[in-house]
Amino acid sequence: MMKIEQKRITAFCDVLRALVPECRLIIGPDVLNVIAVDTANVAMVNINLHKAQFEEFTEEPGEVGMDVVKWKQALDIMKTGPVTITRQAGKIVFSDGLYTYTHVPLDPTTIRKRPTCPTMMLPASVVIDAKEYHDTIKAIGVIGDKVRVSIKGTTLELSVEGDTDLIRKEIESKDGKENAVAVASLFSLDYLKETAKAMRDSGTITIHTGKDHPVRFDFDLDGMEASFMIAPRISED
Amino acid sequence: MMKIEQKRITAFCDVLRALVPECRLIIGPDVLNVIAVDTANVAMVNINLHKAQFEEFTEEPGEVGMDVVKWKQALDIMKTGPVTITRQAGKIVFSDGLYTYTHVPLDPTTIRKRPTCPTMMLPASVVIDAKEYHDTIKAIGVIGDKVRVSIKGTTLELSVEGDTDLIRKEIESKDGKENAVAVASLFSLDYLKETAKAMRDSGTITIHTGKDHPVRFDFDLDGMEASFMIAPRISED
Amino acid sequence: MMKIEQKRITAFCDVLRALVPECRLIIGPDVLNVIAVDTANVAMVNINLHKAQFEEFTEEPGEVGMDVVKWKQALDIMKTGPVTITRQAGKIVFSDGLYTYTHVPLDPTTIRKRPTCPTMMLPASVVIDAKEYHDTIKAIGVIGDKVRVSIKGTTLELSVEGDTDLIRKEIESKDGKENAVAVASLFSLDYLKETAKAMRDSGTITIHTGKDHPVRFDFDLDGMEASFMIAPRISED
Repeated sequence: MMKIEQKRITAFCDVLRALVPECRLIIGPDVLNVIAVDTANVAMVNINLHKAQFEEFTEEPGEVGMDVVKWKQALDIMKTGPVTITRQAGKIVFSDGLYTYTHVPLDPTTIRKRPTCPTMMLPASVVIDAKEYHDTIKAIGVIGDKVRVSIKGTTLELSVEGDTDLIRKEIESKDGKENAVAVASLFSLDYLKETAKAMRDSGTITIHTGKDHPVRFDFDLDGMEASFMIAPRISED
Repeated sequence: MMKIEQKRITAFCDVLRALVPECRLIIGPDVLNVIAVDTANVAMVNINLHKAQFEEFTEEPGEVGMDVVKWKQALDIMKTGPVTITRQAGKIVFSDGLYTYTHVPLDPTTIRKRPTCPTMMLPASVVIDAKEYHDTIKAIGVIGDKVRVSIKGTTLELSVEGDTDLIRKEIESKDGKENAVAVASLFSLDYLKETAKAMRDSGTITIHTGKDHPVRFDFDLDGMEASFMIAPRISED
Repeated sequence: MMKIEQKRITAFCDVLRALVPECRLIIGPDVLNVIAVDTANVAMVNINLHKAQFEEFTEEPGEVGMDVVKWKQALDIMKTGPVTITRQAGKIVFSDGLYTYTHVPLDPTTIRKRPTCPTMMLPASVVIDAKEYHDTIKAIGVIGDKVRVSIKGTTLELSVEGDTDLIRKEIESKDGKENAVAVASLFSLDYLKETAKAMRDSGTITIHTGKDHPVRFDFDLDGMEASFMIAPRISED
């Protein structure tokens, strides 16, 4: 059995939902973990929700076929107080003391395998206010569907090019670290938007990237550690 | 001529609109009454708005072909203060002192006849908070389109079954009455949703039902007495 | 270069957007001016934003092909504080100090010519609260798509006729001027709605019209002088 505040486990589902509708949930002895890749193989999420964030965590370790959409549906009808999540005879029972949602989980073997986390040298990084990053991605997306993410010195620049027009915004890094190399890569707006929304309440996010390399966002949502990695688009398409 | 607060006559129209777009309105010597059945013959409404709820009520008794949608439209543009409703030369004139809405009523003979109110033994009943009932119906409808309404002892249970999942909620009756028999019937979510919305502000509602029998909701909206009756769905479909 | 509060230049664009997606913007020595006709030749706008409304106004006089939709898009992502608008090497650069929006203007020769402002005798006029006018146009439009605008004595009457129903509202003129002639003309609801929205925050508007003649709305938005003129619909269609 797991007992946890509704909004904490909802935040866990929201991060996953930014990329995947279903995934393999690993119940460890003291952590819930998911590593998953989206259908198009463009983006990856890695998330850990630790035992310390639970009021109770006595569930047997194992693997669960997690239907993220159904989990969200179950949690959406629950009150914001603590909810219990229990595995019973092959089912998962969510309850907040008022509503009871009995759910048949997916067969894990029908879900994509967990990918191996790539180790990748991303030479430049900045630390940015999560809300400002989110609002910028939302604002600049009006004229195009690809975003250039550049880091130079202590500055992150986000820009979008339309047919004739160009929008850009510079944001100063909060850690003051001077990056030795200037880098820039191009990403799909849709992926940046979905992930930005999931990170919005995380205070600050650390953004790592390179020249025509993936971008990785590391963030912490009230003790839940997570990261998104997104592959670049080819500039010329 | 009738003079009444806009929100009272709007509430009257809202209850009707939950089931029918048009109906036969009976203007009695000291009451407005409608008894009407929806097009699919699944649900019935019976409502009385008494003279005491009006500031003036000097309209001649008679029958009016009521276009509920148009009445709503007329009332929606009026201020929330008192509105006058007057029959003049075959027309109905709504006015709040600013806007004047002149409406040609329907010919009552083109509208379905008033049904006879069935007398029906519904052995079990509970008294439930109207808002909690409304919120529950709205919440549990996410996974299916049929709702099981059960009464057992002092408890109402509402549940919906999806393809694999099940949501249920128990609500304790406010009158503490112990029901001698346990009953359950299945109803269309759509009818429960529409009627729940119309009853939301009524404080408490009394729910009567039986085993595979209709359900009846009795409620009072600020002095306006009304009831909805809904026929059950066959469990096996 | 022009420097102006974002909301002032946005209001300028909103007035234009009520009728045209693009127009010829005249930058005069101490004013921005547009006179433009909508695609259907039904309505005209004439607007002046004076140097006094700017924090700086050092832009060279000339004509600019103004893409109103793109200007709105650029201004929408800016903060509400001052924005600078600069012509640089054939481009227009908008900036609020955070976002930079670089825009390629339209070729003015591809845009409809500026019309000559007709001088027209409109014998009757009233002065009306802009918000009340807006709310009335919005409310009465529910039953039809043509609005009759009548002036008689000191009163403006707005009315819409549906298939069977009729809505009307009288509004007293604020200037107390008794009009010698009673006039009435019929107009498309859509034009009245769009222009009413653009005038809503202007305090009062002066409405001039005649018998089956155009209507002209004169208004002032925080120092920006503008007028809309709309041609009547033939009553019999």
